[in-house]
Amino acid sequence: MAEWDEKEIFPVEAMRKAAQLGFGGIYVKPDVGGSGLSRLDTSIIFEALSTGCTSTTAYLSIHNMCVWMIDTFGNEEQRHRFCPSLCSMEKLASYCLTEPGSGSDAASLLTSAKRKGNTYVLNGSKAFISGGGDTDVYVVMCRTGGPGPKGISCVVLEKGTPGLSFGKKEKKVGWNSQPTRAVIFEDCVVPVGNLLGAEGQGFSIAMKGLNGGRINIASCSLGAAHASVLLAQEHLTVRKQFGEPLANNQYLQFRLAEMATRLVAARLMVRNAAQALQEGREDAAVLCSMAKLFATDECFAICNQALQMHGGYGYLKDYAVQQFVRDIRVHQILEGTNEVMRMIVARNLLQE
Amino acid sequence: MAEWDEKEIFPVEAMRKAAQLGFGGIYVKPDVGGSGLSRLDTSIIFEALSTGCTSTTAYLSIHNMCVWMIDTFGNEEQRHRFCPSLCSMEKLASYCLTEPGSGSDAASLLTSAKRKGNTYVLNGSKAFISGGGDTDVYVVMCRTGGPGPKGISCVVLEKGTPGLSFGKKEKKVGWNSQPTRAVIFEDCVVPVGNLLGAEGQGFSIAMKGLNGGRINIASCSLGAAHASVLLAQEHLTVRKQFGEPLANNQYLQFRLAEMATRLVAARLMVRNAAQALQEGREDAAVLCSMAKLFATDECFAICNQALQMHGGYGYLKDYAVQQFVRDIRVHQILEGTNEVMRMIVARNLLQE
Amino acid sequence: MAEWDEKEIFPVEAMRKAAQLGFGGIYVKPDVGGSGLSRLDTSIIFEALSTGCTSTTAYLSIHNMCVWMIDTFGNEEQRHRFCPSLCSMEKLASYCLTEPGSGSDAASLLTSAKRKGNTYVLNGSKAFISGGGDTDVYVVMCRTGGPGPKGISCVVLEKGTPGLSFGKKEKKVGWNSQPTRAVIFEDCVVPVGNLLGAEGQGFSIAMKGLNGGRINIASCSLGAAHASVLLAQEHLTVRKQFGEPLANNQYLQFRLAEMATRLVAARLMVRNAAQALQEGREDAAVLCSMAKLFATDECFAICNQALQMHGGYGYLKDYAVQQFVRDIRVHQILEGTNEVMRMIVARNLLQE
Amino acid sequence: MAEWDEKEIFPVEAMRKAAQLGFGGIYVKPDVGGSGLSRLDTSIIFEALSTGCTSTTAYLSIHNMCVWMIDTFGNEEQRHRFCPSLCSMEKLASYCLTEPGSGSDAASLLTSAKRKGNTYVLNGSKAFISGGGDTDVYVVMCRTGGPGPKGISCVVLEKGTPGLSFGKKEKKVGWNSQPTRAVIFEDCVVPVGNLLGAEGQGFSIAMKGLNGGRINIASCSLGAAHASVLLAQEHLTVRKQFGEPLANNQYLQFRLAEMATRLVAARLMVRNAAQALQEGREDAAVLCSMAKLFATDECFAICNQALQMHGGYGYLKDYAVQQFVRDIRVHQILEGTNEVMRMIVARNLLQE
Repeated sequence: MAEWDEKEIFPVEAMRKAAQLGFGGIYVKPDVGGSGLSRLDTSIIFEALSTGCTSTTAYLSIHNMCVWMIDTFGNEEQRHRFCPSLCSMEKLASYCLTEPGSGSDAASLLTSAKRKGNTYVLNGSKAFISGGGDTDVYVVMCRTGGPGPKGISCVVLEKGTPGLSFGKKEKKVGWNSQPTRAVIFEDCVVPVGNLLGAEGQGFSIAMKGLNGGRINIASCSLGAAHASVLLAQEHLTVRKQFGEPLANNQYLQFRLAEMATRLVAARLMVRNAAQALQEGREDAAVLCSMAKLFATDECFAICNQALQMHGGYGYLKDYAVQQFVRDIRVHQILEGTNEVMRMIVARNLLQE
Repeated sequence: MAEWDEKEIFPVEAMRKAAQLGFGGIYVKPDVGGSGLSRLDTSIIFEALSTGCTSTTAYLSIHNMCVWMIDTFGNEEQRHRFCPSLCSMEKLASYCLTEPGSGSDAASLLTSAKRKGNTYVLNGSKAFISGGGDTDVYVVMCRTGGPGPKGISCVVLEKGTPGLSFGKKEKKVGWNSQPTRAVIFEDCVVPVGNLLGAEGQGFSIAMKGLNGGRINIASCSLGAAHASVLLAQEHLTVRKQFGEPLANNQYLQFRLAEMATRLVAARLMVRNAAQALQEGREDAAVLCSMAKLFATDECFAICNQALQMHGGYGYLKDYAVQQFVRDIRVHQILEGTNEVMRMIVARNLLQE
Repeated sequence: MAEWDEKEIFPVEAMRKAAQLGFGGIYVKPDVGGSGLSRLDTSIIFEALSTGCTSTTAYLSIHNMCVWMIDTFGNEEQRHRFCPSLCSMEKLASYCLTEPGSGSDAASLLTSAKRKGNTYVLNGSKAFISGGGDTDVYVVMCRTGGPGPKGISCVVLEKGTPGLSFGKKEKKVGWNSQPTRAVIFEDCVVPVGNLLGAEGQGFSIAMKGLNGGRINIASCSLGAAHASVLLAQEHLTVRKQFGEPLANNQYLQFRLAEMATRLVAARLMVRNAAQALQEGREDAAVLCSMAKLFATDECFAICNQALQMHGGYGYLKDYAVQQFVRDIRVHQILEGTNEVMRMIVARNLLQE
Repeated sequence: MAEWDEKEIFPVEAMRKAAQLGFGGIYVKPDVGGSGLSRLDTSIIFEALSTGCTSTTAYLSIHNMCVWMIDTFGNEEQRHRFCPSLCSMEKLASYCLTEPGSGSDAASLLTSAKRKGNTYVLNGSKAFISGGGDTDVYVVMCRTGGPGPKGISCVVLEKGTPGLSFGKKEKKVGWNSQPTRAVIFEDCVVPVGNLLGAEGQGFSIAMKGLNGGRINIASCSLGAAHASVLLAQEHLTVRKQFGEPLANNQYLQFRLAEMATRLVAARLMVRNAAQALQEGREDAAVLCSMAKLFATDECFAICNQALQMHGGYGYLKDYAVQQFVRDIRVHQILEGTNEVMRMIVARNLLQE
């Protein structure tokens, strides 16, 4: 994990091994190579993997979300064409929603897809795309109709398509084991057969994908926080100051207790939302937003406090805790910023 | 609820009506009049009742804990002697653990019970006893042996026993619908047949009772917070400033979203601990402590924020929100202060 | 302080003694009986008095604000007519800005003052008026012109004026040593000679008064917090648990250190704003808002944490700490809620 | 600043230019090349410089602390030998207190200095030394006597001394424009004439140096936070979402107001402590600890919130805000962790 971070390695082989364990399409149906597991299972798996490398697991979760979208909204031909090689991670997927000018306000996206015979011609660009440039399959939200959410459709693009290019690799605070680039479309021609669902259904697909995506990213935060609590616990036990282990300091004991308590609360929020989503409960979307808001905020605070407990060592790249802090910082921002989560929850409360 | 608070009324008749619905011995076995429900059911019931009056529900939860102790640790004779009239709330119970000099450090209690023939002679005093003076049955932790937890036993005392008297009624910030008094023993004679369990088992009984007690009190906090969120929501919708409802202010919307999110997290913590206790899981005690710590802290913050959202009205006794704030403030202190909760959780983490 | 709280006594005699020390018109000019001290002096005085009784000091600060308004915006005749008896507190003053329908949005006030010959005829009502009904002089913001801030004027009314009446005494969480009532005007006739400043100048007078009012109320919070830290410190030193003083617990030591640190920060904010106001600096208004926001929020947290450190005793009215908590809770709400303070600061930042 | 960070450049030339403005020995006496300014001036200078590059300024502040120690505790010969070339930054200084086994517990340091004729022979090692390996003059705390603080002395060592070597350059989360290495002494011979003050005075010198060091590092945090608030303010104004600038969101406005308010409070804490130190007030040490605790905690929170306001852009190294977050994270840890600050403040409070 430290090496992947330092050298900015996208660990494709490691991920393919994970795929052999069924982690390439965890909540994808088995007939196309998926593991057919539940959202709750998925959350547990991502939490566990994330203790090993949060950044890589987070990419894996995005890949899974893409495969699930194709599995769920694609027709039989599309499912069988794309999913098997994605489930095995022979091919990797990227999710293309955000644009330079539309982050939280996804519905205002500008990338256009003009129908021309049996094709769509795409123009525009996407920003902050995880895996962008190094992946093979791009699930792209684009505008086939008028302004607003109803004009948005979802198409699948393959690398190598003429007119598809990529920006420079971004330098980031963390998430260094996954490349981030802009994805650019210049008269990029996609067959109509690559449209997922119906025209105009894209925004709805995107939002449904994000419900799961939010649980997944929150699960990655859980893993980072869990690992950080264990690291802190160990450091406190081993490190001596004033003639005794740091763990003998009551203040640090109590802070550790708070961290563990908040981790349990965050985990329950995520598991509960996963269960609600699995059961298709009406309040699933709001529970997913709450879980993402709560878990990513609390887990960042936990990791950051664990870093503090390491003293000077916590600031050195030789110690893993700082990487967890850097890696999960972005979880409070992406898949909808935590400000957008508050907006979703508030809207739900005040419309009741 | 406001009237009971203002006039400091102990609403015995209202509680007897609740007992007719089975709320006098919710998790007590049916053969002695209990409802035989689970800890999870109990939590849901106390949360619901607490939206009506937190202070009264909190007393009810203490009463339930006492009846459960007699039901669980008493012999058949004791169970049948005490439980039926307690389950019907014909008689009311008080829990006597805390002493003026031993709060968090319960194991250092000084009230002595000297064996004399077929009786114990009690001397000492208890502090902060809910219901004290107005209730009929006192479950008393006292010292029959040497110092430390192993010297503590549990006896049941009835009002009217010679040598049993009460201090002045305390004036409190909240919890005004239940009287609080010191309970004083001066050569107070109790038959040996009123000993619950074996000699020296008292501390263990007390701790087991507190696991449930902590979930119960945390559940009462949930009810207060839930009611406060609803009150805030309504006030924001109705109250206009700057020509529009307060609810149109994004800052208040987002704060409301945070309150609701934290309430859901607190509820999950409590429910999860209740389930663990019901199943007798090994981690039940630590989960109960975490739930009490998290839920009582977060719910106080929620109620206090709801008060703020009411502006000046929140400070007036005509509005219920301030009573929720006053009533639940003590939940962070009793059944083990939240500092003691941190201690229990920390001990558990660092002994692993 | 406890007795004044419990019995809801408005301690007029005690305040008159304070006035003999010059506290009835601290920053009022000496020629009309004031002490002629600076805003910084005033802040120090209110902080000190507030350790004795926050609620009474808070009223005193409102009285001072009223006298200052007459001293500053009144003509010579008005200054000499009203100020001397107010400075000696032979007479007491109330500030009448807030209305049932206009709290934070003061500029929308509805109380009308129609010119009729040499008089104004007032109709309308004011809410949450400190001292209302028990005081002699009312500084009233009312509408002499069109809607918005420019239509507002400021008149001085005396008790006994026909058409002036009062609502019921409000029951409050704290601030019990000062009565709060609605003030009602029904065809209430005021001589034109009681107009402070020019017609239409009222809102400007109100805002200027509030700059000082905010520092004053923040100073009262400082006193309450300072007293609470001392009470907590003493309790921790005296109270023993687990065989040693609570003060031996590192966690409590560190929390106490945080409380003291935040108190120092709050005090610096208030003193700095007082200095800026005294010097008439351009940023005085925003510094006053920042000081009020920061000090009243932090000091409430300090008092509340001091209560927690008292354990069960903190919840009893025999102990002073709970009264500080109850008394200063309203400081986050009045003289502009802390949400309005954020609004003022934000507006200043984003207009730069 | 971004380039120095990315390429880990120690900008010696830039610092020498700063020294030409008098920043190499700001609070050093003029007769040896210092600027002779006050602690308050120093704080203002470091805050200003830190808006340009926090990491470089932080090193500069350590260099200044070293020169001040030689200026203050050195004899005339030492002052004239070392200070002029340090004030001009022809030579650079490092402060060697922390050891691998003694961080917060500085008094337990093990590096030994055995007297041998006219020399001391040093053995041991120092950890986390800013500038270590790239600087010329090392102010070293070492043990010339028995255990505890009284056995510690302070010697000045020059690069090139036989037996002086350095560990590998540490990889860190931030502070990349200054190299950090272990400093190792193996039979390293220092002339007795390099002893600062008397034998056994070292710990006292170290502590006095740290009072200033804490204000300096806190001032660097102020600069980072101030710059971050400005960056956030600009981003909110420029960036549009949902058809309008982010700055139109009330929630973000209010958060910005809180950030600015807390920055003002932090600044007042630092300035006030600087003034107290300058005046040699008795409470200077505790005020320095409070200022360091408060300012470094609050400023980190401010920078981190400013990052959040940037959305995804805040996570990219193209944007400066993330560097401020990374650079000041260590300020909560060094010059005594903020836990040690709490300890110092608590000790002061409870000994009163």
